[in-house]
Amino acid sequence: MTATAPIPKFHVPAFLGERRGEGETADAVAIALKAAPGAIVSGERLCRSLGLTRTAIWKAVRQLRAEGYTIGASRRVGYRLAGEPDALLPRTIREGLGTRALGSGATCFRKTRSTNDAGLRLAELRAPEGWVVTADEQTGGKGRLGRSWYSPQGGGLWFSVILRPNLPVSGAQALTFLGAVSTAHAIRALYGVPVALKWPNDIVHGGKKLGGVLTELAAESDQIKHAVVGVGLNVNVARHGFPAAIRDTAASLRTIMRRNIPLVPLLRRILVEMDRRYAELVSRGNGAALVAEWRELTPMIGSIVRVSHFGHVREGTVAGVDPDGALLLRSPSGVVDRLLAGDVTILRR
Amino acid sequence: MTATAPIPKFHVPAFLGERRGEGETADAVAIALKAAPGAIVSGERLCRSLGLTRTAIWKAVRQLRAEGYTIGASRRVGYRLAGEPDALLPRTIREGLGTRALGSGATCFRKTRSTNDAGLRLAELRAPEGWVVTADEQTGGKGRLGRSWYSPQGGGLWFSVILRPNLPVSGAQALTFLGAVSTAHAIRALYGVPVALKWPNDIVHGGKKLGGVLTELAAESDQIKHAVVGVGLNVNVARHGFPAAIRDTAASLRTIMRRNIPLVPLLRRILVEMDRRYAELVSRGNGAALVAEWRELTPMIGSIVRVSHFGHVREGTVAGVDPDGALLLRSPSGVVDRLLAGDVTILRR
Repeated sequence: MTATAPIPKFHVPAFLGERRGEGETADAVAIALKAAPGAIVSGERLCRSLGLTRTAIWKAVRQLRAEGYTIGASRRVGYRLAGEPDALLPRTIREGLGTRALGSGATCFRKTRSTNDAGLRLAELRAPEGWVVTADEQTGGKGRLGRSWYSPQGGGLWFSVILRPNLPVSGAQALTFLGAVSTAHAIRALYGVPVALKWPNDIVHGGKKLGGVLTELAAESDQIKHAVVGVGLNVNVARHGFPAAIRDTAASLRTIMRRNIPLVPLLRRILVEMDRRYAELVSRGNGAALVAEWRELTPMIGSIVRVSHFGHVREGTVAGVDPDGALLLRSPSGVVDRLLAGDVTILRR
Repeated sequence: MTATAPIPKFHVPAFLGERRGEGETADAVAIALKAAPGAIVSGERLCRSLGLTRTAIWKAVRQLRAEGYTIGASRRVGYRLAGEPDALLPRTIREGLGTRALGSGATCFRKTRSTNDAGLRLAELRAPEGWVVTADEQTGGKGRLGRSWYSPQGGGLWFSVILRPNLPVSGAQALTFLGAVSTAHAIRALYGVPVALKWPNDIVHGGKKLGGVLTELAAESDQIKHAVVGVGLNVNVARHGFPAAIRDTAASLRTIMRRNIPLVPLLRRILVEMDRRYAELVSRGNGAALVAEWRELTPMIGSIVRVSHFGHVREGTVAGVDPDGALLLRSPSGVVDRLLAGDVTILRR
């Protein structure tokens, strides 16, 4: 918190869901208690330094406890922070994040239909660039082409980032690569798990789907007005936690690493990875660097694949991806097609 | 009305503005009176044939009168339709229009901020493809790049059409051409005024701006989810009706033809022109035919122009437009650049 700018204010419609972790008083109390790690801070000192009444302090402590903070309290002596939660809250996400744009603010839902839907709505309501939307649970999590994304309570990172890049709409695939490449690098850096990428938007491991990226945008003619890059990443879903229909094709960091992984540090690392690459994308005005990074993370180049799109099926060899992120598919006759969308099945590596 | 399908129902939020011309009873009474041109239709016959009470009929007549219909009424004898208004109403726009998609329904505001904004909102609320949004007046009419569009009460056609084409986002310029080419052909066909087109989105006459098209869209990755094609066309604005700042650069059909032009037949013709071209665009999957038609309507090819975009300025000769509708500009050194957006000043023809 200390190193971040004040959170801009705009109206978040209540119908999007119940939010967590907001409130300046709770933020101030959390900061004050963290500044004295393990120590007891007297109620009087808190009142004085924060300019708040005892009742206000007590309310903030209750809120923080409800959010998962462990705070010891004794009426005579004071308060002591004994533990912080691994909870997705604006405070835990943004504290000292050190990014330029990503995480300019955050709205954290217990439950919302889809963080992309909420992000699109907040973007229309003028949420600043870099605003993050998270949900502990999505009731209507979305994949590409109207598919659903299983997003159970606490099972993973279901979040979206609002961006306002000065890019033509042809930059949409670069934004999807931005989400995928950043997530893959965060996982590799934190946990050493060699996750890979699959065109157009999958994060995979051992042939199973670990996560996906869904970019949605609003445009005026050829120019992006705002985009929402949504990431769904299975983190702590157990193998038998997945619905039967996807149990054999889905993976989570837990099924790979056989332990639970805290969500907050992983989200923060993804945001840091995205922030650096996003700045480069916008300053260059094209996604060439992202496409190059994406290529390094995919085992698809040279594979024989089948691509289906709205009933059209083609087979061929993946020749690469072009600067806009389109898949280049070489047919048996040698013709190279440029595919903008489709579902890919890898037939042979 | 007779030849059109029933109007689908979905919720139009009240904050978008006051709507006109809705209501099945008013529609039914209008149809019944029109079916007996000039004749008196007895109240009893109306009640019987429409299955309505006398009170319901009388309310409908009052609504129709408020909308501008001239209806004679005498308590003993019945009702007689003596005149229909040139008013933008779902009924007057759709009656016997004979289109496939365009005008599937309409929402007609007295006043709204922007028909594009309203159209985007209605598209999110699942308005059907082809839905038309009109306003007698826009309080925040929009041009490209956040510019405003002067849209006074009754001064012109300010309308938007909701489309859901199965096209990649690179089809956005084709949709803008769809609006511009259709509007130009409607004006030429009805009034013989040789209006021309200017890249990227202007409808011009004698070097003055008569209208413009603004396409906005929502996309998922590379695919259009829905698009709104907005047309602003100055029809009955007098020269001194324009704000001073645009008086010398704006034209209206009235300043050109020196008489007022009815709005409803012009809008209907534009919708018919759009409908045919839209069907072709979607079945082909590309805008090649529209680009070809647009080229026929522009005097720009071969002109020396200056194009500015976000502070970058280039000069060159217009070599053409490519299949996506991008401007091809040949620099003095012979290099041809592909421009996706910009403001064009014609320096020499």
